[in-house]
Amino acid sequence: MTLPRFALTPGEPAGIGPDLCLLLAQHAQPYPLIAIASRDLLNERAAQLGVAVRAVAVTPEAWPDAPAPAGTLYVWDTPLHSAVVAGRLDSANAAYVLETLTRAGLGCVNGHFAGMITAPVHKGVINEAGIAFSGHTEFLADLTHTHQVVMMLATRGLRVALVTTHLPLKDVAAAITAERLERVTRILHADLVSKFGIAAPRILVCGLNPHAGESGHLGREEIEVIEPTLERLRGDGLNLIGPLPADTLFTPKYLEHCDAVLAMYHDQGLPVLKYKGFGAAVNVTLGLPIIRTSVDHGTALDLAGSGKIDTGSLQVALETAYQMAESR
Amino acid sequence: MTLPRFALTPGEPAGIGPDLCLLLAQHAQPYPLIAIASRDLLNERAAQLGVAVRAVAVTPEAWPDAPAPAGTLYVWDTPLHSAVVAGRLDSANAAYVLETLTRAGLGCVNGHFAGMITAPVHKGVINEAGIAFSGHTEFLADLTHTHQVVMMLATRGLRVALVTTHLPLKDVAAAITAERLERVTRILHADLVSKFGIAAPRILVCGLNPHAGESGHLGREEIEVIEPTLERLRGDGLNLIGPLPADTLFTPKYLEHCDAVLAMYHDQGLPVLKYKGFGAAVNVTLGLPIIRTSVDHGTALDLAGSGKIDTGSLQVALETAYQMAESR
Repeated sequence: MTLPRFALTPGEPAGIGPDLCLLLAQHAQPYPLIAIASRDLLNERAAQLGVAVRAVAVTPEAWPDAPAPAGTLYVWDTPLHSAVVAGRLDSANAAYVLETLTRAGLGCVNGHFAGMITAPVHKGVINEAGIAFSGHTEFLADLTHTHQVVMMLATRGLRVALVTTHLPLKDVAAAITAERLERVTRILHADLVSKFGIAAPRILVCGLNPHAGESGHLGREEIEVIEPTLERLRGDGLNLIGPLPADTLFTPKYLEHCDAVLAMYHDQGLPVLKYKGFGAAVNVTLGLPIIRTSVDHGTALDLAGSGKIDTGSLQVALETAYQMAESR
Repeated sequence: MTLPRFALTPGEPAGIGPDLCLLLAQHAQPYPLIAIASRDLLNERAAQLGVAVRAVAVTPEAWPDAPAPAGTLYVWDTPLHSAVVAGRLDSANAAYVLETLTRAGLGCVNGHFAGMITAPVHKGVINEAGIAFSGHTEFLADLTHTHQVVMMLATRGLRVALVTTHLPLKDVAAAITAERLERVTRILHADLVSKFGIAAPRILVCGLNPHAGESGHLGREEIEVIEPTLERLRGDGLNLIGPLPADTLFTPKYLEHCDAVLAMYHDQGLPVLKYKGFGAAVNVTLGLPIIRTSVDHGTALDLAGSGKIDTGSLQVALETAYQMAESR
């Protein structure tokens, strides 16, 4: 039996993504890991960093069967459209970035890869190139014809999934509909079972309002939307606790007995997760037909080529993808 | 010179407030600490708990000069309106609860006390008695004719103040006005100087939207309201950093160099604070002419009389009030 194979996309070529992949390749991985990027870019960045890592081209016609040894990074060579200077964005390479994501995503759908791990892209420069793009997650949802995906961040000992993600705060309350909450909760439950190997997941659900609405005194969405939806889902066997006040939920009494927290919006759930998991948090996209994990940070253009970066989040993203593939 | 004297209000008589005060009085305090409550209630609860603490009556005519010894709790006796059963709310005692707060608050204004420390009240049962009451903070603001107060929670190593507090989430964005943000920020700065003895406070300010609005892509309040207000306040010498994304602000890189975080709303700032400070967080009301600290938890009616409670938050509330009085 051949080992499962994973795709790694370094993302924005002027950012720290290529650097992270090279630093990581100083150590051997347990599975064949294939960077989808320009081989020239990786070799140039390795020279700039003074890192003894060689980018070795591989192709779909002859995937490697074994992990690369320390100091070697397998690359599915994907040509740049314009030469890259570390730290300097260039919209000419927007199509290149999307090509690497397409190769990784379709490679997962077609069984070439057991999962994909993504380093950061820069949304702004892709939009500048005239391409509508709101992020990895949405791009991969489109590519795999997925209607609803769920963003989950995880670190050792805590997983937080979000009902809404990148919305202005003023639009959050109206976006918490019974339909959305039900879809997201079902996906979270199903993926904890199928991708994380948890037979009967326990999910803690935050309220939308402070103190989870305090019996309607601080908002009625808990009474009118959240509680009836959770009750309906409990009828289908989901183990859901809540809605609970977000400021008391993140305490040992509750967290010790749960597999994931479902927060209603971005800044309700992620500050705690990133506080706890600082430098070692991973972003997992649930609901896709493929396994996809990502670092939880941005392109850090000012640090590209400097070597002064921390590979912690990428390491956790890799470990998580490996574990998810093993749990399937 | 006589020692400063502090008022302690046990709050809701059927809740754990009396229990907390009695457990605490097993140990001596560094200052005279005077519970404002029914002496009978405290003696009965002590018997129920099996705690060897005696409630000793003191009066404004002859305040004690020295701290009570371990096992003694000074009480400014305030009669109940109805006998209390631990765990059972009774609206007949709503006026009693407010009388204890009035005695403490006016006692601070009049110089009897250097500060007051409050155990939890139960808003619902006070409202049931036909008395409009939305919390300690608002009550004390009215009592002291204070227009704007600021809620701040603190634990060892982290302080988080809030621009808005107990509002339904859907109303938060509209409540973040330049006027409110300026008032709150000025109070936070002034009280860090005057009540915490910090000469030049550094304050980290959260954005309202995810990623602090991401240059307007995820909401425009940062550009239209928050940034111009902070810039104006910087012109007056305030050291303000932000607006920063809330999910990256609560990391050592930022927190190590700040005296307080200003969050825009309840569930943006308090989950991290309570995660970090679990069982040892204190609520401080800024902007009042008096020092007031409080526990960060509720009445826990089901635990009243059981003794199975943790005095951690009340201890930090006392320590914080003492330190604030010493910094003045």
